[in-house]
Amino acid sequence: MPSTSRVEAFPVNTPAASQIFTTVLSHGPLTRLEAARRAGLSPAAVTKAVRPLLEAGYLLEDANDEARPALGRPANLVRVDGGRALFIGLKVTGDEIIGVLADLCCRIRVARRVPLRGREPGQVLTVAAELVQELLTEADGFGVRVQGLGIAVSGDVDRAEGTVRYSPFLEWRDVLLAELATMTCGLPTTVDNDVRALTVAEQWFGDGVGLSDFALVTVGAGIGCGLVVHGRVVAGAHGVAGEIGHVTVDPAGPPCHCGNRGCVEAIAADPAIVAQVREVTGSEVADIAEAIELAHRGDAGARAVYAKAGEAIGRGIATVANLLGPARVLISGEGLAAYDLFAEQIRDAFTAAAFGSAARCDVHTRPLPFEEWARGAAATAIQSFITADPN
Amino acid sequence: MPSTSRVEAFPVNTPAASQIFTTVLSHGPLTRLEAARRAGLSPAAVTKAVRPLLEAGYLLEDANDEARPALGRPANLVRVDGGRALFIGLKVTGDEIIGVLADLCCRIRVARRVPLRGREPGQVLTVAAELVQELLTEADGFGVRVQGLGIAVSGDVDRAEGTVRYSPFLEWRDVLLAELATMTCGLPTTVDNDVRALTVAEQWFGDGVGLSDFALVTVGAGIGCGLVVHGRVVAGAHGVAGEIGHVTVDPAGPPCHCGNRGCVEAIAADPAIVAQVREVTGSEVADIAEAIELAHRGDAGARAVYAKAGEAIGRGIATVANLLGPARVLISGEGLAAYDLFAEQIRDAFTAAAFGSAARCDVHTRPLPFEEWARGAAATAIQSFITADPN
Ligand SMILES: [Zn+2]
Ligand SMILES: [Zn+2]
Repeated sequence: MPSTSRVEAFPVNTPAASQIFTTVLSHGPLTRLEAARRAGLSPAAVTKAVRPLLEAGYLLEDANDEARPALGRPANLVRVDGGRALFIGLKVTGDEIIGVLADLCCRIRVARRVPLRGREPGQVLTVAAELVQELLTEADGFGVRVQGLGIAVSGDVDRAEGTVRYSPFLEWRDVLLAELATMTCGLPTTVDNDVRALTVAEQWFGDGVGLSDFALVTVGAGIGCGLVVHGRVVAGAHGVAGEIGHVTVDPAGPPCHCGNRGCVEAIAADPAIVAQVREVTGSEVADIAEAIELAHRGDAGARAVYAKAGEAIGRGIATVANLLGPARVLISGEGLAAYDLFAEQIRDAFTAAAFGSAARCDVHTRPLPFEEWARGAAATAIQSFITADPN
Repeated sequence: MPSTSRVEAFPVNTPAASQIFTTVLSHGPLTRLEAARRAGLSPAAVTKAVRPLLEAGYLLEDANDEARPALGRPANLVRVDGGRALFIGLKVTGDEIIGVLADLCCRIRVARRVPLRGREPGQVLTVAAELVQELLTEADGFGVRVQGLGIAVSGDVDRAEGTVRYSPFLEWRDVLLAELATMTCGLPTTVDNDVRALTVAEQWFGDGVGLSDFALVTVGAGIGCGLVVHGRVVAGAHGVAGEIGHVTVDPAGPPCHCGNRGCVEAIAADPAIVAQVREVTGSEVADIAEAIELAHRGDAGARAVYAKAGEAIGRGIATVANLLGPARVLISGEGLAAYDLFAEQIRDAFTAAAFGSAARCDVHTRPLPFEEWARGAAATAIQSFITADPN
């Protein structure tokens, strides 16, 4: 059995050092003074924090010719050496695993997709281990260690415990995935809900950089939401958070798998749209692609289903905005393929239901293919690596 | 015009010192080691942080006879000297101002109520200034300075700017209340939304102590919600947050003052209940007290109205739980006077609409009279005093 012994410790042992590293990681090359300002620390604290990181090669300091002052010493730029470490991220869907090899700056170096041969935990782990092995072999070509593995799964996932409590797509309950994957793949493993993992990637490396409060809403097979409040992803005291899919839009609406009626997910997720298009149009559309096609051909019934779906999503987003007041809401997910069919309704329903200045929230789309979700898993592994408790 | 010159600076100039003081303030007497553990700091950092606070008399260190070890030095207890400073908190309703003089540990020393003579900002400020003057006179008896004033107002309040953006009860728009009150009352003034202020008091001194994530839902004239996420009260990027009152329960429900239909507030706030009881029973109840009385006498129509209100509140709480996963939800507000009429429906609707383990959230009632809301305002003043940027 492979062990995790080849992994090295990250030379950060104070919250200040972790904060400085994260600041430079998210914001790119910064002068020490600017890093201190953004992290809210003294220049002396920054000097102390960066020393071991420079020595270990995780940070680099370059002469900054552009910022060279007319007089005096040039202000050097501190940046993360992305090539210093590698990470693997896996996104598990009901049909396949998407895997990426990413560097410390979460840039994708290699991406792969492998179909699943079954959804049992053992079957999924076997495919995952093969994919990890393939990516580890690729990593050898870079001459850099892979320091961690992140796995993103939809459903109720307890990251702290490393457990998939319930995943409807995989039909899993209480699977100790982190422990199993660590044993099978030989890497320290972080397991997280897929939308939360994607949210981490957006927070550190994407459209959420610099925002202390934002939301990422994903539409498609399900309707999910990752929330960043006060600079951290919301996980929930009991592992549940961001369940925008189960915000009630209409208590007399269609039944939802959660046991209630008229949830956003019961109106606007792909299976709900397919079912409603069949019912309204009488056309036996096979899947969401056919439903979209029908609507794009101008079928009034199919278009009306999409209009209702957009209204439900807009109301759900307004609920998030009214409760949390995020600066920005990003809409992503494979459902964006139909965005032209409900963009207007999302916007109108949001505006109508947003309370007062909550309507000032910046709502926009953010297309992210499944490789980006796997990158999100890698981001959680990076996060675990650089914030791990050294004790 | 009085000046604020008699106010002294709080001797804290690092985040660590502020954190240690807040930890001791919230958790009561602690050994330095325990304070370090709870604040996540090193014992050396604690020693450095407490020194100026001990010197200035904000912290006291007592021999702790109970914890005296068999061998070695006794572990002294560090505690806040509540009597070291005083603060004034005002809660402004549509009819009166409730004012308290509170010590540094937010214990109420004096409480007063004064009726308003009008709702214009100038009229309210005149009454507020008289009340503050009265409480300052009381403070003289304690021989301790009043270090700050907190004012709590319902509606859309921007604490950072010190502005009441919109208060429906007072019919105010864009009132620079903090600046005006500082000039009129001669004290550094913190202005906050009343529910958020009450939430701060619960977080630091009440049922939220030790919880990084909880919600306070207030029922009565309006339906409000204060949220603590990751240890801090959520204010919203644009000043709006916690608007549980405008979570949609039924899109075909009664119209709400926000422009939508079937909001929690349009079904479960006092004016909505009075209107519905009149409509359902035909009885011309004058106010909420008469509506409660009718229901308590067993009138089926009035009881049904309360049952629906309870269901709406329960759904609203479930929405908060599904999005944020708080460890606890406290239900407070003057609406608790009718709690027996809808407790069961709140509980049932919450349980039905909570998603998965979000249902594990601890939901319970927390009666807090208006003096406690004024105390919440004092808590915001204490918070501003001890976390003020020294620069
Ligand atoms: Zn549902
Ligand atoms: Zn409303």
